Amino acid sequence: MAHPPRSIDLTNVTEWADGKSRRKDDYLAVEEPLEICVGDEPVSVTMRTPGHDLDLAAGFLFTEGLIRGGEDLASLEIVAEGSEGRPGNSVHVTLAPAVAPDLERLKRHFFATSSCGICGKASIDAVRARSLRPPNPDFRLDPETLVRMPDALRASQAVFGRTGGLHAAALFDARGELLVVREDIGRHNAVDKVIGWALLERRVPLPEAILVVSGRGGFEIVQKAIVAGLPVVASVSAPSSLAVRLARELGLTLAGFLRERRFVIYSGEERIRGKA
Amino acid sequence: MAHPPRSIDLTNVTEWADGKSRRKDDYLAVEEPLEICVGDEPVSVTMRTPGHDLDLAAGFLFTEGLIRGGEDLASLEIVAEGSEGRPGNSVHVTLAPAVAPDLERLKRHFFATSSCGICGKASIDAVRARSLRPPNPDFRLDPETLVRMPDALRASQAVFGRTGGLHAAALFDARGELLVVREDIGRHNAVDKVIGWALLERRVPLPEAILVVSGRGGFEIVQKAIVAGLPVVASVSAPSSLAVRLARELGLTLAGFLRERRFVIYSGEERIRGKA
Repeated sequence: MAHPPRSIDLTNVTEWADGKSRRKDDYLAVEEPLEICVGDEPVSVTMRTPGHDLDLAAGFLFTEGLIRGGEDLASLEIVAEGSEGRPGNSVHVTLAPAVAPDLERLKRHFFATSSCGICGKASIDAVRARSLRPPNPDFRLDPETLVRMPDALRASQAVFGRTGGLHAAALFDARGELLVVREDIGRHNAVDKVIGWALLERRVPLPEAILVVSGRGGFEIVQKAIVAGLPVVASVSAPSSLAVRLARELGLTLAGFLRERRFVIYSGEERIRGKA
Repeated sequence: MAHPPRSIDLTNVTEWADGKSRRKDDYLAVEEPLEICVGDEPVSVTMRTPGHDLDLAAGFLFTEGLIRGGEDLASLEIVAEGSEGRPGNSVHVTLAPAVAPDLERLKRHFFATSSCGICGKASIDAVRARSLRPPNPDFRLDPETLVRMPDALRASQAVFGRTGGLHAAALFDARGELLVVREDIGRHNAVDKVIGWALLERRVPLPEAILVVSGRGGFEIVQKAIVAGLPVVASVSAPSSLAVRLARELGLTLAGFLRERRFVIYSGEERIRGKA
């Protein structure tokens, strides 16, 4: 790579504060489309923040069920050239021989037929039908370790402080050590980037790790965590009803409102135990 | 409707605060899939918060370019039955005679081919290619009116205070009167709900209105505003680089960080003028 990927832009703006206007320079989180192709077939175009695009592509293919693990990948490559010699917006994926992904799967994801039923229960059943291993029942996490994670996340967020515009996702181990942090304008992309990193590092499944996300915890984030074999997901803001139902039905520990020495446990309380 | 749509759930959780645990009841923002069918064809399945589903369907079809306006709609109907007599998760749309929507358009949206180019410029060109009218150049908004809007938005948010889990979008007029507010677990859905409301009220285009969103301002939110003919978009948090480029190229006024008598203008400053 000739240049680092651009994740922030600088631009001239007008700030209005209490009746006074002034011109100033301001940072913006970069949003650009990324195309993911498997062989010659484009399977996804998503708006994302450039950077760690191979992690994003690997994580997306894995958590959406197009590949079963890192061994299904022969190579990933950024093919298009961006402006000013920067890497471009297209990742081409070559699968290992004999891997035949169900590319129609993604289209069904967006265009389900009503015969399968459209409800929360059907959404949970669709995750269950993927025959994933239940999250590690023996994993234990000290709550004092959990409450330190948001500070560690913020401390290593490179961009958020400057733009206010990015979501972050991070993986921690049970001692509270930060394994990886990734940022993106899209919440799901930040999660795909950290899981994709783990996949390319051959560290998936992750039965001893914790996923922390800076925003809300929705259904798709819990789904991605279950695919990666994570036992615990914690979000800084609230989870959704369907995220809680999925976590409870599949036995994942889900915490929310993780901030300032406080959190709420929605599912899998037995994994979070203080030292008596 | 026998029951109001469920937008919040109550559940039992464990709260951990500073070393002490207690059981309590907590509210959750509801997330459920919604299927939108045009005729017999399913065109979209999206995770959303139930409520105002017809607004959501109308707004989605309009801002994604499947219909050109309210006159293209013959009827919208919630067909599936939900649990406990509540409305279900499927909206069926019947188009006016002689309206032939390009249903392939949505698939192209997700599965663009690389021949069109994958970059921010191509994304902007795709919006421009829809031959939309440029936003009203004569609209003017007093900054003192703009800074009052977030308070009005929060005051009328029914769910956010209780769950911390929902995004809000609202339309205001130039005097700062709230026209409509909608909430959803998905930012884009909240925007589609307010634009869909306006469409079904036969108030689109909206050359004299302001769209305010509770979170970040991304490319797709600016795109939807341009389709609806809105001259001004303001977000409580930061916009993205591509949102700013699109607003500048198409002449929309874009403000961000709208909070506590302060905001930043990224584009179209001439529409926001204080009384000298």
